[in-house]
Amino acid sequence: MELKSRHLLGLEHLDKSEIELILQTAKPFKEIFTRSVKKVPALRGRTVVNLFFEPSTRTRTSFELAAKRLSADVVNIAIAQSSVVKGESLLDTVQTVEAMKTDFLVIRHACAGVPHFLASRVKSAIVNAGDGQHAHPTQGLLDLFTIWETKKRIDGLHVAIVGDIRHSRVARSNIFALTKLGAKVTLVGPPTLIPPDIQKLGVNVSYSLDAVVEDADVINILRLQLERQKKNMFPSIREYHAIWGMNGERLRKAKKDVMIMHPGPMNRGVEISPDVADSPQSHILEQVTNGVAVRMAVLYLLAGGRHEKVETE
Amino acid sequence: MELKSRHLLGLEHLDKSEIELILQTAKPFKEIFTRSVKKVPALRGRTVVNLFFEPSTRTRTSFELAAKRLSADVVNIAIAQSSVVKGESLLDTVQTVEAMKTDFLVIRHACAGVPHFLASRVKSAIVNAGDGQHAHPTQGLLDLFTIWETKKRIDGLHVAIVGDIRHSRVARSNIFALTKLGAKVTLVGPPTLIPPDIQKLGVNVSYSLDAVVEDADVINILRLQLERQKKNMFPSIREYHAIWGMNGERLRKAKKDVMIMHPGPMNRGVEISPDVADSPQSHILEQVTNGVAVRMAVLYLLAGGRHEKVETE
Amino acid sequence: MELKSRHLLGLEHLDKSEIELILQTAKPFKEIFTRSVKKVPALRGRTVVNLFFEPSTRTRTSFELAAKRLSADVVNIAIAQSSVVKGESLLDTVQTVEAMKTDFLVIRHACAGVPHFLASRVKSAIVNAGDGQHAHPTQGLLDLFTIWETKKRIDGLHVAIVGDIRHSRVARSNIFALTKLGAKVTLVGPPTLIPPDIQKLGVNVSYSLDAVVEDADVINILRLQLERQKKNMFPSIREYHAIWGMNGERLRKAKKDVMIMHPGPMNRGVEISPDVADSPQSHILEQVTNGVAVRMAVLYLLAGGRHEKVETE
Repeated sequence: MELKSRHLLGLEHLDKSEIELILQTAKPFKEIFTRSVKKVPALRGRTVVNLFFEPSTRTRTSFELAAKRLSADVVNIAIAQSSVVKGESLLDTVQTVEAMKTDFLVIRHACAGVPHFLASRVKSAIVNAGDGQHAHPTQGLLDLFTIWETKKRIDGLHVAIVGDIRHSRVARSNIFALTKLGAKVTLVGPPTLIPPDIQKLGVNVSYSLDAVVEDADVINILRLQLERQKKNMFPSIREYHAIWGMNGERLRKAKKDVMIMHPGPMNRGVEISPDVADSPQSHILEQVTNGVAVRMAVLYLLAGGRHEKVETE
Repeated sequence: MELKSRHLLGLEHLDKSEIELILQTAKPFKEIFTRSVKKVPALRGRTVVNLFFEPSTRTRTSFELAAKRLSADVVNIAIAQSSVVKGESLLDTVQTVEAMKTDFLVIRHACAGVPHFLASRVKSAIVNAGDGQHAHPTQGLLDLFTIWETKKRIDGLHVAIVGDIRHSRVARSNIFALTKLGAKVTLVGPPTLIPPDIQKLGVNVSYSLDAVVEDADVINILRLQLERQKKNMFPSIREYHAIWGMNGERLRKAKKDVMIMHPGPMNRGVEISPDVADSPQSHILEQVTNGVAVRMAVLYLLAGGRHEKVETE
Repeated sequence: MELKSRHLLGLEHLDKSEIELILQTAKPFKEIFTRSVKKVPALRGRTVVNLFFEPSTRTRTSFELAAKRLSADVVNIAIAQSSVVKGESLLDTVQTVEAMKTDFLVIRHACAGVPHFLASRVKSAIVNAGDGQHAHPTQGLLDLFTIWETKKRIDGLHVAIVGDIRHSRVARSNIFALTKLGAKVTLVGPPTLIPPDIQKLGVNVSYSLDAVVEDADVINILRLQLERQKKNMFPSIREYHAIWGMNGERLRKAKKDVMIMHPGPMNRGVEISPDVADSPQSHILEQVTNGVAVRMAVLYLLAGGRHEKVETE
């Protein structure tokens, strides 16, 4: 079985079996990390370019390691304002990079839709590494993988996503993947930070974390962009923490085997308290590990690799 | 046959047969790009340092990929003002890097002559990746390769170079290479942007693109540094485009098989109109591809590789 | 024989035989640099992350090359103020990087003690690449290696360390290593730049370079941070140079086979005059070369490599 598209733009475009294929393929790649030689020859001689129009050390490093562990050649390109000043169009910049005969363009951009715009205009495989407030599909996949590996299933689980849903590409990618695989999803946060009509995506909405915490199997806590406060989207950090922050008291009310997740970087004491972040229920660092494995799977499958054939030696 | 110098400083120092050797060597390297494993072991274990005192994503990436596809180890060093503030001399900085036992120093510097200054003071091979307004030899070579691959010859062709000749290291490197291989070169641009006496290099000068466009086999359009306008070197962008801009109307007057070239990044609508940039006659993206192949050839030959022996497996 | 700790935090924690083991191991690695293939497979598939919270092109490049010449995969992460603004804690940042399953974290930080703080909290091997004014152990080791390779011994030598001892992590790491191996160490500099009571570390102090220069076997000259002048720590650069600068006149009074050393970058004409920097007695560039070899030895030994087994093919 193969992926139908040669790009990974968003999880809304994948069907259930494709998502499962990625999860299944990530598994043997994760096992490689326990060896001293954390590396397979699968993509030797392929060229992966991390083309980041918005800085992100965490995601760039994860993709860089994923590509290197597949033996690909990786080049990092960070394009800041300075180049935009030079007046070259986005398409010219990307086509120039691609003309160096790249195989993968991993693209992060502050504007939603950039990876889609490029996908029909280049020959390389585009991997969306986060576009504006639209999508962050590999984050969605690594979250899914983390749940699936721990709970052994997605179907029938109750996943709460807590925080600034409105501005979150992570939330959007999670919603698409989780609902497709049969999870019940509840979005929790202040009314100002949850888009109206989002129920149309097949999710529930609650403005009270206390009302949701007892029933959830997974609580995925989003990072609060503190600068949103200036736009009056929440009253104060203290109040945010009191009402929507995940703290030890709430954790005690939750199911014993609840999974606590966070895409990072955390604001400890804001959306998550330190005792929750460091609790046995926390899978936050595991998510980071899984991120590399899932990205290896994505690159491998987009290159035409077959799951049955994963050569890990 | 081998290159006579262990450095590549400028094309004025190469004789005709050396230039042809580089072009011939670039050819099999370009073929590698059509494979899934875009890589040869030729320079395994050699160390290439991209030492850029002036930022250039495009050129740095091209050299980085060239080195990686030769299996060399590459390190990027970007030295900005901050280090100059630290007070270390240029020679100390470069000799320190070289003391780590590098094989190649790929040097970009805002001051003309820096690569030449260093060449007699280091053991590594110096590759000039652009020095001030002096030279950009690998750009000259990739332009030459692009013409040679398309037209199957250089001798007897009429090549027009259009724009800001005065400040252009690209123009200078093209002039040296093209005249050496027997092309007729015409420089076209506003009188303020063409140095007096440049005819001494064996080229023609014209202040009218319309007068040249019909006879040219190749039209190589230089990027206009928009900041030159502040120094009154051209009246307005609109007027520049009207008189010296390559547009669709002029393209229709040109030979059917004219080659349109541009070193990038383009100012669409200034020195080149979008319909020309995207025309079938445009070789602009092919130039970028050829840049990697030509740089592989240069590194390979400077390392003592022989053309007859190019091992591409 | 093996190193006792899985980290390299400071030379005060190593015993004499461990330091000698590192020097012995660096030797065959240095020999590799004379080959065209400057590379061994020792750490293939291991992941080395250069995690620099303070910029340092020189040290980062040296570690990067050391890791690449051991065939490890290397990722550079430069964390500037911008990320600290994002509000993530140091420990979260480092644990996130480590969760990608790194083997080595090479850490440079402006605060003394950061590598020690992290060492008990991560599974990767921590290599201290300079922490505040505390320690720079690989610099100490490369200085030691340079002396040992030239003089064939350390025991009984008289080493003068000249300059800003007070703020120097280089001085501190040298003192620990040299005294452990039996050298006599004299610290020389202005009283304002030598900490009181430093004799407790087993060293002599002198405020006069002239009084020390004739007897020293090695003169290691520290970089003067010119900004210290603003804090009135020395009267003027001219006066500093006159009293504590190593110049040709002083070199003529020194032993014929005196070794001149400097960790770089040099302020020529301040702490060292050009004729001394470029004299036959200068080992300054050799120190840089040895830095790569010593760092290879450190990474190799921390990974569990045995000296007897260094495979260099």
